Amino acid sequence: MNRRILAGTHLLSGDEACAEGALAAGCNLFAGYPITPATEISERLSWRLFDVGGIFVQGADELDSLTIVIGAVHAGAKAMTATSGNGICLMQECIGYAAITETPCVIIDVQRAGPGTGIATKTMQGDIYQVRYGSNADYAIIALAPQSCQEMFDLTLEAFNLAELYRVPTFILADELIAHTREKVAIPEEVSIVSRKRPDVPPGEFIPFKVESETDVPAMPAFGEGYRLPVSGFTHTETGSPSTEYAVQNSMVRHLVNKIEKNVDKLTKVESLYLDDAEVVVLAYGSVARVAKSAVIQAREAGLKVGYLRLITIWPFPDHVIRNLAGKGLKTIVVPEMNMGQVAREVTRAIHGKAEVISFPKPGVEIHKPKEIFDFLRRVI
Amino acid sequence: MNRRILAGTHLLSGDEACAEGALAAGCNLFAGYPITPATEISERLSWRLFDVGGIFVQGADELDSLTIVIGAVHAGAKAMTATSGNGICLMQECIGYAAITETPCVIIDVQRAGPGTGIATKTMQGDIYQVRYGSNADYAIIALAPQSCQEMFDLTLEAFNLAELYRVPTFILADELIAHTREKVAIPEEVSIVSRKRPDVPPGEFIPFKVESETDVPAMPAFGEGYRLPVSGFTHTETGSPSTEYAVQNSMVRHLVNKIEKNVDKLTKVESLYLDDAEVVVLAYGSVARVAKSAVIQAREAGLKVGYLRLITIWPFPDHVIRNLAGKGLKTIVVPEMNMGQVAREVTRAIHGKAEVISFPKPGVEIHKPKEIFDFLRRVI
Amino acid sequence: MNRRILAGTHLLSGDEACAEGALAAGCNLFAGYPITPATEISERLSWRLFDVGGIFVQGADELDSLTIVIGAVHAGAKAMTATSGNGICLMQECIGYAAITETPCVIIDVQRAGPGTGIATKTMQGDIYQVRYGSNADYAIIALAPQSCQEMFDLTLEAFNLAELYRVPTFILADELIAHTREKVAIPEEVSIVSRKRPDVPPGEFIPFKVESETDVPAMPAFGEGYRLPVSGFTHTETGSPSTEYAVQNSMVRHLVNKIEKNVDKLTKVESLYLDDAEVVVLAYGSVARVAKSAVIQAREAGLKVGYLRLITIWPFPDHVIRNLAGKGLKTIVVPEMNMGQVAREVTRAIHGKAEVISFPKPGVEIHKPKEIFDFLRRVI
Amino acid sequence: MNRRILAGTHLLSGDEACAEGALAAGCNLFAGYPITPATEISERLSWRLFDVGGIFVQGADELDSLTIVIGAVHAGAKAMTATSGNGICLMQECIGYAAITETPCVIIDVQRAGPGTGIATKTMQGDIYQVRYGSNADYAIIALAPQSCQEMFDLTLEAFNLAELYRVPTFILADELIAHTREKVAIPEEVSIVSRKRPDVPPGEFIPFKVESETDVPAMPAFGEGYRLPVSGFTHTETGSPSTEYAVQNSMVRHLVNKIEKNVDKLTKVESLYLDDAEVVVLAYGSVARVAKSAVIQAREAGLKVGYLRLITIWPFPDHVIRNLAGKGLKTIVVPEMNMGQVAREVTRAIHGKAEVISFPKPGVEIHKPKEIFDFLRRVI
Repeated sequence: MNRRILAGTHLLSGDEACAEGALAAGCNLFAGYPITPATEISERLSWRLFDVGGIFVQGADELDSLTIVIGAVHAGAKAMTATSGNGICLMQECIGYAAITETPCVIIDVQRAGPGTGIATKTMQGDIYQVRYGSNADYAIIALAPQSCQEMFDLTLEAFNLAELYRVPTFILADELIAHTREKVAIPEEVSIVSRKRPDVPPGEFIPFKVESETDVPAMPAFGEGYRLPVSGFTHTETGSPSTEYAVQNSMVRHLVNKIEKNVDKLTKVESLYLDDAEVVVLAYGSVARVAKSAVIQAREAGLKVGYLRLITIWPFPDHVIRNLAGKGLKTIVVPEMNMGQVAREVTRAIHGKAEVISFPKPGVEIHKPKEIFDFLRRVI
Repeated sequence: MNRRILAGTHLLSGDEACAEGALAAGCNLFAGYPITPATEISERLSWRLFDVGGIFVQGADELDSLTIVIGAVHAGAKAMTATSGNGICLMQECIGYAAITETPCVIIDVQRAGPGTGIATKTMQGDIYQVRYGSNADYAIIALAPQSCQEMFDLTLEAFNLAELYRVPTFILADELIAHTREKVAIPEEVSIVSRKRPDVPPGEFIPFKVESETDVPAMPAFGEGYRLPVSGFTHTETGSPSTEYAVQNSMVRHLVNKIEKNVDKLTKVESLYLDDAEVVVLAYGSVARVAKSAVIQAREAGLKVGYLRLITIWPFPDHVIRNLAGKGLKTIVVPEMNMGQVAREVTRAIHGKAEVISFPKPGVEIHKPKEIFDFLRRVI
Repeated sequence: MNRRILAGTHLLSGDEACAEGALAAGCNLFAGYPITPATEISERLSWRLFDVGGIFVQGADELDSLTIVIGAVHAGAKAMTATSGNGICLMQECIGYAAITETPCVIIDVQRAGPGTGIATKTMQGDIYQVRYGSNADYAIIALAPQSCQEMFDLTLEAFNLAELYRVPTFILADELIAHTREKVAIPEEVSIVSRKRPDVPPGEFIPFKVESETDVPAMPAFGEGYRLPVSGFTHTETGSPSTEYAVQNSMVRHLVNKIEKNVDKLTKVESLYLDDAEVVVLAYGSVARVAKSAVIQAREAGLKVGYLRLITIWPFPDHVIRNLAGKGLKTIVVPEMNMGQVAREVTRAIHGKAEVISFPKPGVEIHKPKEIFDFLRRVI
Repeated sequence: MNRRILAGTHLLSGDEACAEGALAAGCNLFAGYPITPATEISERLSWRLFDVGGIFVQGADELDSLTIVIGAVHAGAKAMTATSGNGICLMQECIGYAAITETPCVIIDVQRAGPGTGIATKTMQGDIYQVRYGSNADYAIIALAPQSCQEMFDLTLEAFNLAELYRVPTFILADELIAHTREKVAIPEEVSIVSRKRPDVPPGEFIPFKVESETDVPAMPAFGEGYRLPVSGFTHTETGSPSTEYAVQNSMVRHLVNKIEKNVDKLTKVESLYLDDAEVVVLAYGSVARVAKSAVIQAREAGLKVGYLRLITIWPFPDHVIRNLAGKGLKTIVVPEMNMGQVAREVTRAIHGKAEVISFPKPGVEIHKPKEIFDFLRRVI
């Protein structure tokens, strides 16, 4: 029996499903510091990693945890950490470090009500910008927003694959509701796993950060394999040497940003309903999307020309998907979300005035009710 | 002689001018951890604060430094820290804590090339989003971008005033170029200082977080004065008690965000030139704005219908100013900045498709040359 | 009025008296981290230092606190920290650093029951060896044991003087009983203060660690005065340069140890009673000494040939005083102490078999009662 | 093939032999922070533990490392850390915590020249008292001093056995010379391993700190086995509940100290030569003992009545062995050691004036030469 893949149908919480997704993806090291509502991920991996010969470390704190993950990845591991937004604060330095060193790693953010300590046991979708922009200067990351326990499994697995494919920190933007809900999760016998791109030249010929184009991703050996693998937070040339030259900074930053941003087409995952003739589109993500979809179906049944668009990929932000909404009679996009309108801002930017964007924010603790969204749609139309 | 206000005209570096601005504003505690290119601020305050009976602390690290600042403010001080983007990473938890506790404080970010360690001695404008969005969940801050040593003095002083007026962390988005340039700085005999709003009721009647409306700011006593002053990172009621209620979370977060965002009119400072008939507006801020202005003047001399808009207030983002640009023949907004287009994104969002926004990014190390911008404008037109 | 010296007679706790002793001695910086039963020292200095233009810092932790003290001293301050044995653990690295850099500083250890966390609110005399031997390799320190609130004042003042005279970390071995007892403390109008030995040559001729003999103490300038003042934890020559030579290590370590150990005569303070014809001597220190003295007086009244010796100076250990007890009919030394016999071990070593040493240990929480000691003496005799 | 026991004869450095001893003893977790001259222990275990399914963690620092070790032990592991005296400073809090929680663990101290940073690459025997007395209040530990690479293997294995047998932190007092010397090390096919004493009652009847007598050691389950296993640094009753009672403190401390001190007979290991008719005994330990033995043999050959005693067990200090030296014509004990006379002090105490004790100290960097000791002996006689 494959202890890594818990094939079959299980009743799992979102946190538990996330842990299983990591294992199925080949995660062999987890380092984290406990924080509600992400603690159950650590808890499960503390014994499940043991089952598969992996390593579980409770770091001294969040800084330490992501540092350990980064080190492990360079030693050849697939590694992950999990925290909440408060912990993301403490990881910001290492997130930038992971970005500039092109370290594939997975960071689970189970969002809770904030700002500050906020409310440990209540939900929010407040960290949308935080995971994208909290470290210094320009870089890019990937972030996926699951809406169910099943997606906690599926998207965590996917996050590992994307992290490896793009050598980039990849986030799961979960939230407390999904983390603590318990649902049926189907785990297949086999999963598709992306392996790290390995050098195809002998050590003597290897150039660590050499890329074909700015959207390409360099091959990555592991420590101890004989290849040079410089790991430095300094601006560096393709050989990994520190540099203070403009040309180096320019090409490095453009590479770090564009290997993600210019691959946005490939990276984008959305789900949609009734878009063809919709005058109003409800755009949502994560747990709120479930409620929104139910409200949209109800609105259609009531004869309202409403459509539904769910973002699964939050970062890179799928501007092209938003732009494509315009021009088919669309008048309004309603964005219900559990924050003060973070994604609504992005939609406003992306739609270029081609439709009105109406934010429908609730800043955490309580999720929108289907009726609230339905009533809101009625008022809008 | 008033040791606090170094009246007269001086040749000062931007960092030195910043330190003098803090002193003029009444800063009596500085806590920081050295980092290039912000170290000279610490250095100067280490002896200048001594002159005025203030306190200088080198924190154990950046977390410690902002923690000390927050504590000092609640003890009645006006307090500041200074760092670069790497240090901002480490302060993100305390930035959110300062936001939720409504702690007036000033944070100087002398931006340097990144991401990660980047290049300690080279410039960038990469932390625009970082200072706004790096902590968890929704909150708001103020950020000002100086373009000269004179403004390092003026805006640091202003930052203290705004911090007190709005009880909010207020950032100076400086950059290495301005920090290390040495220019004439005129310091007046007298400056205008905003004092903290004090309780106007006796201690027994004081409600710590009571506000008249969501854009109002509560009065703030100091520890030891007999008033209750609960300081907690938890979601709290107007009495400062922790709560897990939606109503409390909702009104608290709306207050934290809207006391800043809805006062954007009052908070906005811009500088402009030739906007009336401009077909192309160059929008810039900080050190790049100086170059941009020079290019715009040159373009006007060459007969091009070009205008110039400098944002001094970066956050809250002045959407209304951007919107007002539209409709007078404006076709294009060009945004030269030393990052991959962070403010250009915001302008795109705010302009609502009423003009084309063209980002002209240089990701640090080297500032745009006037001729580069001039040539760029020619191509655009 | 001299705010530094609170002249007059006051009712003070031991911790409060300690704080006043520090102020009278010229302490102008305190850095500490709160811990029962030493917290009241911090508390009082937090406002009393303010009165006299000094600086109070709550460190991020104990490591930070002693680090700040050491830095302040090299900047010219007289500085102190206060903690309990648990905090001493965390200061051990810096204690060694202070020793090798010959940094005069005062460390108050208000002992509480241990080991480990032990009991925060109960007394013990358990840290006798810890303050002497807890850092790596050979060095020396001074430690004084007060028995009353008055001595908390007197000996803290004395500790500052000795620290300056010998450039050495100097400890007060207080305990919870004395710290929290409230007694009459008489503070004189004037106190005798030892100033730091300053260079008597111009900066160009100054050799930082030059001594006349191994028991001599080098002159000490402050940062910013123009003198070279290398401060390094490395083995160093008299110029302060690092060295790996045996000759340098040998002379440096001998100097560090012998400037204290060979000055033991000058450093020793004891109190005694009835020693001339005593067959049994009760040797005690700190709070237990008060009880012991009372038991000895009672024993004399009962006709027993008992004497009393109180060690005020614990380190350097006054071997010569112990040796001098022998040969006058002395048969036995009884050592009541609130630990498992730490000083009894030292007395055993020092007496060289010339008398029997009987340990009378109580490992904290409860002090010996006079009757317990009296009964013990009866049994011994 | 047993990957745990590297049976056969190998050329190993002392650090490498130490790592192998740990593996042979069943160590399955190592946590440490690199420091010269102990780094090679970490280095070897980083891959050797991998071979045997164990866990290697580089802690965030020394505090973290010993904390991880303690946690692992309560989860059922045999665990170890390694450092130098500077790192021991930072572990002192956890050493006391391990003592009061009766956590079996092994701490390797590869001593280097100090105090302070001292000289990273030079030897010393300076931490004799530090490992015994550096944490607060009364407790006991075991410490063994190897004199060869073979003993780095043998005694590390022994240290694990003693740690388990007595539930106590057990130290190896190695030094830089032994750590970096490379010698033949014979590793047997089979080694004798002491298993942790397990509860012999079902969980419901288990009393965690119940002992038959104060020298007895309580049984120790692991987390997750169903037994209550309270782990607290507070003074505690036999059930593990915190207490502030004198009776509890008294019996707990006596137990912690006496389970080691009163078992000193069983714990003591020494090596001796020519003691029967010796007028002068050279007492040494660790690397110096090898030199001393050679000098003693030379002295015997020269007709001097000299004996040799090597302490392998340093703590608990074998007073009884020292006392037994007296009375057979012994006049003098010479103690050559690479510190200022730490063990000489203990010998002086233990011999009770029955012989003269002469310290022959060299404070690190350079070991005594055989001729130096021989000449010293000549002068003494």
